Amino acid sequence: MKKAKRRTPERIVETALRLFNEFGEPNVTTTVIADEMNISPGNLYYHYRNKDEIVNALFADYEREIDALLTLRDTAPREAEDIWFYLHLLFEIIWKYRFLYRDINDLLTRNRRVETHFSRILAHKQQTAVALCNGLAASGVLEATPDEVAALAVNITLVTTFWLSFEHARQPRKPPDIGRGIYQVMSLAAPWLRGPARQLLQQLSQAYI
Amino acid sequence: MKKAKRRTPERIVETALRLFNEFGEPNVTTTVIADEMNISPGNLYYHYRNKDEIVNALFADYEREIDALLTLRDTAPREAEDIWFYLHLLFEIIWKYRFLYRDINDLLTRNRRVETHFSRILAHKQQTAVALCNGLAASGVLEATPDEVAALAVNITLVTTFWLSFEHARQPRKPPDIGRGIYQVMSLAAPWLRGPARQLLQQLSQAYI
Repeated sequence: MKKAKRRTPERIVETALRLFNEFGEPNVTTTVIADEMNISPGNLYYHYRNKDEIVNALFADYEREIDALLTLRDTAPREAEDIWFYLHLLFEIIWKYRFLYRDINDLLTRNRRVETHFSRILAHKQQTAVALCNGLAASGVLEATPDEVAALAVNITLVTTFWLSFEHARQPRKPPDIGRGIYQVMSLAAPWLRGPARQLLQQLSQAYI
Repeated sequence: MKKAKRRTPERIVETALRLFNEFGEPNVTTTVIADEMNISPGNLYYHYRNKDEIVNALFADYEREIDALLTLRDTAPREAEDIWFYLHLLFEIIWKYRFLYRDINDLLTRNRRVETHFSRILAHKQQTAVALCNGLAASGVLEATPDEVAALAVNITLVTTFWLSFEHARQPRKPPDIGRGIYQVMSLAAPWLRGPARQLLQQLSQAYI
């Protein structure tokens, strides 16, 4: 049996994502996307009437993926090592949709859907950070007051969201090493960790600093 | 004696700064700036040939002000309370030139001078954070290993640089309370503080959370 060919709408969003990530969303027009795919602009417009519709489709994909990760289930990480792995998954999604993170202020200004949904995602990230800290506290791995956990969760949300922009501002022409971003997030939690979790963090971090 | 009238070039950069901060730099043209000042575009172009020259003039002002603060002298803060005051001065400069921080990725892409100088300012910020932590350590106020201080300094640099963008993404239509930003930076250092410094931080933070 022959493998089914990917459908044009899927190929459009995949191509757009690749070009947005490489050149920045403001610098990629629908014409460039159609050119890259060897299809006519008319064919593209048949599926997406304008670039904002493509951005919205990508944002919906991003939102689905990040919400699935942020919604903790019975398998929620309880140990420092699980958190490291969890942060890897989070940074992979951020990296996959990095154009959103690099141009977030511009998109927030221009796109009402991004404005409302992105702030909801940030709130979800922050709630999840609080829940993860409380989970670690329940296993005796982390020790902090509720105020300390609240401030820590805000900083975790901020660092996971803007680490990529920060690296870009520091070294605009060098691809970032995501492991260093995870290390920065882990080092926010480090002083609150107790017992073997702290040594484990130090071992894990050797690979990244 | 009559007070000397401010010169036109000064008034141009002041007006541009106000409009950039309010509406975002990409949304303000030289025509809008001239209109706002009730001068002709020709008069404006006599002083600044294009908008990039105005942005560069503002960036030079910003750079001078932030470098002066980041260059520690004998009066460098040594106590937790001095750090709070120091962060106030830093956030005041960031707030004054907030258009730079909100549109930093866009400016980095478009403006070679901003690209090179902004990454230098970030490196300076990070060095100063290390020096401040070492100063606090010398007075017995802070206790951390060199690796811990290095990771802390990166996070301090990141949070001071992107807190405004973070607040904007969380609540795009609400003016931010800078005290909360300072609190987030102080809470990065909090777990490393020893003795009365830690209680002082808790008292100071009551006003902001």
